[in-house]
Amino acid sequence: MARNLRTIRLTVQYDGSNYAGWQSQKNGRTIQETIERALAKITGERIVIIGSGRTDAGVHALGQVAHFTTSSRLPADRLKRALNSILPGDIVIAAAADAPPRFHAQFDAKAKVYRYALATGDTVDPLIRNFVGRARYRLDIAAMRREARELIGRHDFKAFLRARGERGQDTRRNMRRVTITAKKDMVYFELEADGFLYNMVRTIVGTLVEVGRGKFPPGTIRTILRTKDRRRCGPTMSARGLVLVRVTYEPLR
Amino acid sequence: MARNLRTIRLTVQYDGSNYAGWQSQKNGRTIQETIERALAKITGERIVIIGSGRTDAGVHALGQVAHFTTSSRLPADRLKRALNSILPGDIVIAAAADAPPRFHAQFDAKAKVYRYALATGDTVDPLIRNFVGRARYRLDIAAMRREARELIGRHDFKAFLRARGERGQDTRRNMRRVTITAKKDMVYFELEADGFLYNMVRTIVGTLVEVGRGKFPPGTIRTILRTKDRRRCGPTMSARGLVLVRVTYEPLR
Repeated sequence: MARNLRTIRLTVQYDGSNYAGWQSQKNGRTIQETIERALAKITGERIVIIGSGRTDAGVHALGQVAHFTTSSRLPADRLKRALNSILPGDIVIAAAADAPPRFHAQFDAKAKVYRYALATGDTVDPLIRNFVGRARYRLDIAAMRREARELIGRHDFKAFLRARGERGQDTRRNMRRVTITAKKDMVYFELEADGFLYNMVRTIVGTLVEVGRGKFPPGTIRTILRTKDRRRCGPTMSARGLVLVRVTYEPLR
Repeated sequence: MARNLRTIRLTVQYDGSNYAGWQSQKNGRTIQETIERALAKITGERIVIIGSGRTDAGVHALGQVAHFTTSSRLPADRLKRALNSILPGDIVIAAAADAPPRFHAQFDAKAKVYRYALATGDTVDPLIRNFVGRARYRLDIAAMRREARELIGRHDFKAFLRARGERGQDTRRNMRRVTITAKKDMVYFELEADGFLYNMVRTIVGTLVEVGRGKFPPGTIRTILRTKDRRRCGPTMSARGLVLVRVTYEPLR
């Protein structure tokens, strides 16, 4: 039996606006279930897909990665087309490919890139309104960039984890890159790390915004990392500005 | 009485997805009515606003211009904020300013810029799916650019006007610029003219796509402009890819 099982790797894009996240303990439609239902229709099997990680309610993705095993013989490309023809327009399978049998979207993930889009103007372009957070402040971008540098490297990011995190969880992560780009009334944050804690990006952005508007002093991030005191963090920004851009893996064997 | 009337000029942005256009003879919610209702609430007056031109059902705008007259004394900036607090998120007043009393958004418009976004890939990024037309072809961009050059200058664009155009309408327009930009799986068309006929941009794009995929020969545009034969045009592309980017006026006196 098992030797007939294939492992398929999916690259998934979604507008998370109308979903209770990738996966949810609570009620509400999730991305994962929606794809699983479509797979059941196509293969006739009850399939569980495993994502590189959960994205929270309202968070979007351009490069979420997931895998599943199936005994279906359908070529990956036809599977992709069949999925896209069934799935609603706000979930898109950008790629489907056979993967090594033991490929695991979560355990094998080496790094992730998240982007946060922040609209700082008086009004928000209605064409992107569902994909931006808002902070109507004049922000000191240079000060935010200096502060963001303190995030780089291996740190215990526990303070940025929302209280409901699992107990005993390892909260150390290696932050590789934080880029802040300003363009007209928009500020874009791009963060790359070997992994992210629940709500971590949104709380980091909220903290940097407080620095940028002069409410938190320079050195805030360093203090937070040292004290691990969540009360020193800024607010957790709205999910709608957050996009999981990319998950990277070792080159396929 | 009349000497108390002010003329206000609005810059309006909208996601047209859920509207029957700027103004409509048919049933359906329109952008114009939605703004008029909000103005009635704010001023207590029955106000009619006049746009630079109609945009069709589903078409978007980042720089539509409209004007109205009112005896309200509310400063323009407060009017803008009041409107934005009442209007749904898919309509945004980007600017409101006092204009010369005889300013007329339609009659005084000197030029308009429209942009058409075309997704040519196998799948469409779900974050922009409501703002792109689709054509899953490999397009010869250089051939499209050569063809587009034939549109430049003063021509009778009658062939590109949908049949229901008003009889006796002057269908000559001066096309100033047509830019075609390709980026990954997207092709962007930007057209600037002193005015556009009903459906003109969408039919021009549809015709250029037929040239780009090799279905129509080079010289098609020239033939269409000469013969004014609508049957030689390509299909009218979907409204969702079209955005009214800008309307330009003489500098305010």
